[in-house]
Amino acid sequence: MFLAKVYVTLKPTVNDPQGKTILGGLKSLGFDQATEVRAGKYLEIKVDATERAEAEATVEEMCRKLLANPVIEGYRYEVDEILL
Amino acid sequence: MFLAKVYVTLKPTVNDPQGKTILGGLKSLGFDQATEVRAGKYLEIKVDATERAEAEATVEEMCRKLLANPVIEGYRYEVDEILL
Repeated sequence: MFLAKVYVTLKPTVNDPQGKTILGGLKSLGFDQATEVRAGKYLEIKVDATERAEAEATVEEMCRKLLANPVIEGYRYEVDEILL
Repeated sequence: MFLAKVYVTLKPTVNDPQGKTILGGLKSLGFDQATEVRAGKYLEIKVDATERAEAEATVEEMCRKLLANPVIEGYRYEVDEILL
């Protein structure tokens, strides 16, 4: 069993209204040190596989087919074995 | 200038309908290897600070005051210096 940590982020050129809203919230709380916020998704997925390479290939396909929108988003992931 | 990567996750005991929906989507695409999905938030925040300790203290306070809901969410973060 493997645990995949998947990070989905907007591409740098894509407008990020959620990030801008969070930045506005931080500034209104007095955090003037914050200069930019980009918001993304973080997913933890348990994958049933016998080998790391198999788990990684599965997660790559998941990202391409469902988890990220390739037009506006990029993704990266780490796969770690879960020791039961 | 520092870049903070903030991960906000639901506590393990909290129900996660978004994660369940993503798991259902994966299964309907044929990814039977996926056994659990937990959805969280991933934020990249640029913080203007002269020292790492100062940046980390700022990010800790941001998490407590705005970014995470301490009743249902946990958070962790990494702070790296941006070399301009």
